[in-house]
Amino acid sequence: MGLFTKDIQTFDDLFVHTLKDIYYAENQIAKNLPDMISKAADPTLKQGFETHLKETKEQIRRLEQVFQLLGVETEGVDCPAIDGILKEANDVAGEVADKQVLDAALIAAAQAVEHYEITRYGTLIAWAKQLGLHDCATLLEANLKEEKATDEKLNKLALTNVNRKAA
Amino acid sequence: MGLFTKDIQTFDDLFVHTLKDIYYAENQIAKNLPDMISKAADPTLKQGFETHLKETKEQIRRLEQVFQLLGVETEGVDCPAIDGILKEANDVAGEVADKQVLDAALIAAAQAVEHYEITRYGTLIAWAKQLGLHDCATLLEANLKEEKATDEKLNKLALTNVNRKAA
Repeated sequence: MGLFTKDIQTFDDLFVHTLKDIYYAENQIAKNLPDMISKAADPTLKQGFETHLKETKEQIRRLEQVFQLLGVETEGVDCPAIDGILKEANDVAGEVADKQVLDAALIAAAQAVEHYEITRYGTLIAWAKQLGLHDCATLLEANLKEEKATDEKLNKLALTNVNRKAA
Repeated sequence: MGLFTKDIQTFDDLFVHTLKDIYYAENQIAKNLPDMISKAADPTLKQGFETHLKETKEQIRRLEQVFQLLGVETEGVDCPAIDGILKEANDVAGEVADKQVLDAALIAAAQAVEHYEITRYGTLIAWAKQLGLHDCATLLEANLKEEKATDEKLNKLALTNVNRKAA
């Protein structure tokens, strides 16, 4: 970002900036998921994180296709939001003594990550459509659909199993 | 947090920790909203942020009632997630040159804040019910309902007005 200039001049610039933000975020999530997989005790939760890691790698590829469609260099920008969400997840996980309580904390942390992605993809899709970038919108919608499905699966696992065991 | 001890031993501890997290978050949001109000150009957006500031103050009071019901001291804990989300909102807003593009960026930032609150309240309500804390759950549900309504209002404003003007 410019020290003395404002780098986002147009709505297109804002769209590209936010695309770089979620690209950075997805890459950070992919880096953090192996640690969450190793911490999860419940086998369904562990499996769910493993599936989501595969999905995340595919989502990164879809974002790279969006950069290509736009003719813009594929790169991330600093995203203090996801850094903060992941830092908090790690901090809290480090404070939890019991494995079953930790599973509940891991689900909450993963749902905070999902909600960040859901809001960013929702915004990007609306902006892409407004800008007439319908091919980009289609790729972003595929990512959004997976994030919402993951959030719903985590919700179900918490309510049917993990919370009861934690309590 | 303990340097050599794990401070979250039980599911109740995790619930209280997360309550303190959202209490800190709501207070930070209340501190940041006046700046967002001053930056918003669209009168409906400005008014929406003003209404949400009033709601946020009431939400803080509801959280204080939850602390009282639990017999726990009302206090926040560091919440790197909301700090990161708000830092990102400020960073991006500082980079946007055009007032109408800035309105679109402000809505996206506010929706990221709402989604953080939605996920935390969703988690806290599920945990409160699992712990048999039904009075606490009722108060938290009142907050969740307002956050979801705010997110929906922001969505509608973006789609019907602000994004078109930004483009």
